Amino acid sequence: MLNDLSGSIIIAQTPFDDQGAVDLASIDTLTDFYLRHGANGFVVLGVSGEGGKLTPQEALDVSSRFIARAGGKPVIVGVSNPSSAQLKMLTGEAMHRGASGVMIAPPSGIRTEEELFSYFSTVFEMIGDVPVVLQDFPGSTGVWMSVPSILRLIENFPQIKVVKEEDIPSLEKISQLRAGQGRRVAILTGNNGLYLPHEMARGIDGPMAGFSHPEMLSGVYRLYTEGQIEAAHDLFDRYLPLLNYEAQGFWGVAARKEVMRRRGAIRHATMRRPGPALTAHHLAEIDLLLRRLNRSLEEIGSAPALRKSTMPAS
Amino acid sequence: MLNDLSGSIIIAQTPFDDQGAVDLASIDTLTDFYLRHGANGFVVLGVSGEGGKLTPQEALDVSSRFIARAGGKPVIVGVSNPSSAQLKMLTGEAMHRGASGVMIAPPSGIRTEEELFSYFSTVFEMIGDVPVVLQDFPGSTGVWMSVPSILRLIENFPQIKVVKEEDIPSLEKISQLRAGQGRRVAILTGNNGLYLPHEMARGIDGPMAGFSHPEMLSGVYRLYTEGQIEAAHDLFDRYLPLLNYEAQGFWGVAARKEVMRRRGAIRHATMRRPGPALTAHHLAEIDLLLRRLNRSLEEIGSAPALRKSTMPAS
Amino acid sequence: MLNDLSGSIIIAQTPFDDQGAVDLASIDTLTDFYLRHGANGFVVLGVSGEGGKLTPQEALDVSSRFIARAGGKPVIVGVSNPSSAQLKMLTGEAMHRGASGVMIAPPSGIRTEEELFSYFSTVFEMIGDVPVVLQDFPGSTGVWMSVPSILRLIENFPQIKVVKEEDIPSLEKISQLRAGQGRRVAILTGNNGLYLPHEMARGIDGPMAGFSHPEMLSGVYRLYTEGQIEAAHDLFDRYLPLLNYEAQGFWGVAARKEVMRRRGAIRHATMRRPGPALTAHHLAEIDLLLRRLNRSLEEIGSAPALRKSTMPAS
Amino acid sequence: MLNDLSGSIIIAQTPFDDQGAVDLASIDTLTDFYLRHGANGFVVLGVSGEGGKLTPQEALDVSSRFIARAGGKPVIVGVSNPSSAQLKMLTGEAMHRGASGVMIAPPSGIRTEEELFSYFSTVFEMIGDVPVVLQDFPGSTGVWMSVPSILRLIENFPQIKVVKEEDIPSLEKISQLRAGQGRRVAILTGNNGLYLPHEMARGIDGPMAGFSHPEMLSGVYRLYTEGQIEAAHDLFDRYLPLLNYEAQGFWGVAARKEVMRRRGAIRHATMRRPGPALTAHHLAEIDLLLRRLNRSLEEIGSAPALRKSTMPAS
Repeated sequence: MLNDLSGSIIIAQTPFDDQGAVDLASIDTLTDFYLRHGANGFVVLGVSGEGGKLTPQEALDVSSRFIARAGGKPVIVGVSNPSSAQLKMLTGEAMHRGASGVMIAPPSGIRTEEELFSYFSTVFEMIGDVPVVLQDFPGSTGVWMSVPSILRLIENFPQIKVVKEEDIPSLEKISQLRAGQGRRVAILTGNNGLYLPHEMARGIDGPMAGFSHPEMLSGVYRLYTEGQIEAAHDLFDRYLPLLNYEAQGFWGVAARKEVMRRRGAIRHATMRRPGPALTAHHLAEIDLLLRRLNRSLEEIGSAPALRKSTMPAS
Repeated sequence: MLNDLSGSIIIAQTPFDDQGAVDLASIDTLTDFYLRHGANGFVVLGVSGEGGKLTPQEALDVSSRFIARAGGKPVIVGVSNPSSAQLKMLTGEAMHRGASGVMIAPPSGIRTEEELFSYFSTVFEMIGDVPVVLQDFPGSTGVWMSVPSILRLIENFPQIKVVKEEDIPSLEKISQLRAGQGRRVAILTGNNGLYLPHEMARGIDGPMAGFSHPEMLSGVYRLYTEGQIEAAHDLFDRYLPLLNYEAQGFWGVAARKEVMRRRGAIRHATMRRPGPALTAHHLAEIDLLLRRLNRSLEEIGSAPALRKSTMPAS
Repeated sequence: MLNDLSGSIIIAQTPFDDQGAVDLASIDTLTDFYLRHGANGFVVLGVSGEGGKLTPQEALDVSSRFIARAGGKPVIVGVSNPSSAQLKMLTGEAMHRGASGVMIAPPSGIRTEEELFSYFSTVFEMIGDVPVVLQDFPGSTGVWMSVPSILRLIENFPQIKVVKEEDIPSLEKISQLRAGQGRRVAILTGNNGLYLPHEMARGIDGPMAGFSHPEMLSGVYRLYTEGQIEAAHDLFDRYLPLLNYEAQGFWGVAARKEVMRRRGAIRHATMRRPGPALTAHHLAEIDLLLRRLNRSLEEIGSAPALRKSTMPAS
Repeated sequence: MLNDLSGSIIIAQTPFDDQGAVDLASIDTLTDFYLRHGANGFVVLGVSGEGGKLTPQEALDVSSRFIARAGGKPVIVGVSNPSSAQLKMLTGEAMHRGASGVMIAPPSGIRTEEELFSYFSTVFEMIGDVPVVLQDFPGSTGVWMSVPSILRLIENFPQIKVVKEEDIPSLEKISQLRAGQGRRVAILTGNNGLYLPHEMARGIDGPMAGFSHPEMLSGVYRLYTEGQIEAAHDLFDRYLPLLNYEAQGFWGVAARKEVMRRRGAIRHATMRRPGPALTAHHLAEIDLLLRRLNRSLEEIGSAPALRKSTMPAS
């Protein structure tokens, strides 16, 4: 059941070959990479997963491939779309292919909370009884949802099982959602995990984010839930310089794909066009950050709590 | 050739039945209605044509039906899409089905003119040699294009054959586009035709707009090109109260569909959800406006220049 | 009492000399002009009054001059400001100089209705017991307020005596505000009066708008309240072509000032910079519209109900 | 000369007492604090300095107090204002009081680069020969300026001596500004210094940012300019967890003021209303981050390169 979702849920990249075609074979290696580093589930075709750049057929092919390889872990499919009819079609097809649920953010153009409620009334009636992750990501959608508004949506629409909270700042919103909550939903957070340890302290059920080193996401989650709070911060802080670098919008995603290519997770670092293309400057910055990260991780050979969660960054 | 496009080019409504399904049969009666009232071409699946609410398959079915019924008049298909891959797919399919070209507006999220240029470089490379209507509609897209920027796009991308100029205000922009123009493109205007006679004086090639009484659009165009400027204004002014009423965003489109239903052009006035639903207040307002329009048109029995362009409003 | 405000409340222009300095002498002739054409009150320093272009000292000088000349009619001062401290200072000074109240729109940057409520809590606590016109003008502020949100503000803040409703479309919002209302507030409408007769039917207390021919605003109000609904529309429709022309944002305001200069209301048509400057094209368009308006008004010599509300447009 | 500006230029907080009144006495201790930690100049009344919440009189009082205490270091005054007249007035008064220049960002509402150029043409003509920092901060203004646009402004307006580049991401923009530059201007960067070491590598002249530990900003600058690049990163990384925490918009500024209060720089952590108020959660997070920072700084007793730049965080 998605309302019990917890742990490190990965916002998966979509791999493309160097011509920009979907690279289905890399989905297999990528999924294995994520699982090996502690993924407890997946969201495919989110914003940083370049879901908005695909055709409907490509979206379904990508979803099916991830589902087939996920080893029974839940796969949630991003279906946000300015066309409700297309959203409905994608939802039906994704669930038919074995998705555990879909993720929906309101379309840009929603301007009042009345319109927001009306939008979701329509959409939830259209898609029927499907588990939904409600995505609160105003930096991308331009739609701001207050805590009372999110609580009202949860109360009225039983399909909502999870809130992906990635407003910035997220911290106070998490505390208020937890305090105001009637029916239990899972709350996970995005924003590249930039505030993950603090968000854990505020009561989330885990990260729902992408990072080139997913072992950090699962490691921080594990340490925190084990009560090793200082160790969780220690681990987080070592990765923070790279994490911060990957938090530069689509340029950050391009860097992330390049690091994941170097780690063997995918064959090509290509972003589908229109999208950024890294320069020599960026590659030098990535070199520096990875070199420093590896050195920092080597220093913790004597820290067993951390070691379990790490592996070389190359 | 689209760069010679002129006359009244209709932004066509998409008819839905009372359940919100596409009503293909009504496309035939609607196309006949438009042609009977002076349409010299069509744009289907624009913003007010609810193009953004369809699935790709529906979009192609609607396009094909209009093309088949248009009696050889050009049909342009709106293919603007946040996904460039979907835009490319729709473009290829529409042209394959006999479209004369496609209409493209930049996606929301374009923030500088450098990004604008980069976006269209990518898109024009992807779609190849297809005639394009460049739509300048910042009120809908949130993307503002200056005149120098539009001229630069025209200069660099020979696929652009037409500019649909519907910034508000449009007037100075039209004069500047005409003055700055190198290669000849057609300039037509939208915004529900609210400034049509002034725009004709500024040098446009005709309206590219929707209205429940398309005979006004074609009539003003004909009178103006015949040099009957006062008569063009006389005709326009009689329709202006209703035109102004239909210029209320999607609520105006709902009113337009209701009027067109009453005129027999379509079977149902339904807007696809999410969308507005007219109240008794609105229906009373429409009653009043149509009654007053009919009375006003009857008064011009003695004005042959106008009479030719009109018919009863019911 | 402002909650009984009704009739034609004029959004006053601010006159500048040809160097862009405030032209205080023209405020006297302008106020007389407005009063002679049926003004029942004033709002000074609104958006189209270029209030945002003044220094605080200029704003207070302009306000004082209007108040001194208004012959006892209420003068409301626009004090919206990104700085709450400056808003408070302007409010205090305006009330001290004899204003009947102030008009406040939320600052851009308000994103949720929770933030909206919080903003007004702070502001109303800061300014104390001052009569307020709450301005709902999302096209200018970028802040959208739903009807439930406006009703909640009215219920919580007794300072709100009037709502200036100028969302587009306004009609359904007016009906819902009237239906949902607890405590009585006056509702007046802006948007250049573009939907005035329909808004009267929906239950407003009058226009709160600017127009180069304020006799139309007061005339439509008078006819409508006398039950002469068709005559109200007849009058409105004759002015609609010019009204529509003046509804082109700041370019429309520039045209309005030019027409008012021709009518002797102000000495210069100058807009303060940065602002639009009319071209020969615009002047020719204004010539044409005024010539046509005058001819149309002459035709109604035989219509006493209308005649009372009109005078030559030159 | 401002075009030679370099080093750590501090975006200064504005101190308020617990009633929200400007706390002039704390400006003295705050300025001393900044200078003691390596400030080479100041920008007062920026966005995070809550400049937009003051009255004009308060703005001038605050500016004068900082100028008097700055010990000859340059003080730049933020004068961005939706009213150009108020901007001009503030600029004249600030320069009269001894400011070294003013900082200007374009007002929200600028939509095309043509409008941007026109805006600055007007403003630069109004203010005359005053040294200007052009602020590129789209996250706050909603105005996006491309590199060609910024270069065109520099080329046309000799008053521009400095560009404060704080778009996110900033890195590629810095490289392109440096590569495209004709006339030399200083380039400094904001965004809370989140990418400072990478920005140094891209060629900036220093940070122009606020942080509760300004010794990090000056330390990273010094180490980088001395060629101690690894040490610069080492220093930066130790502060990054707190820096990241302070980068949460106005909530981050509230946290920064709380930390600076604890460090004795100001008497009260108050943000002027409307503004955020920290909860017990936030205070606990700050406790944790400061405790961890102090421990981390203690570890570098053996690293003289770093030690010089640090002091206890309490």
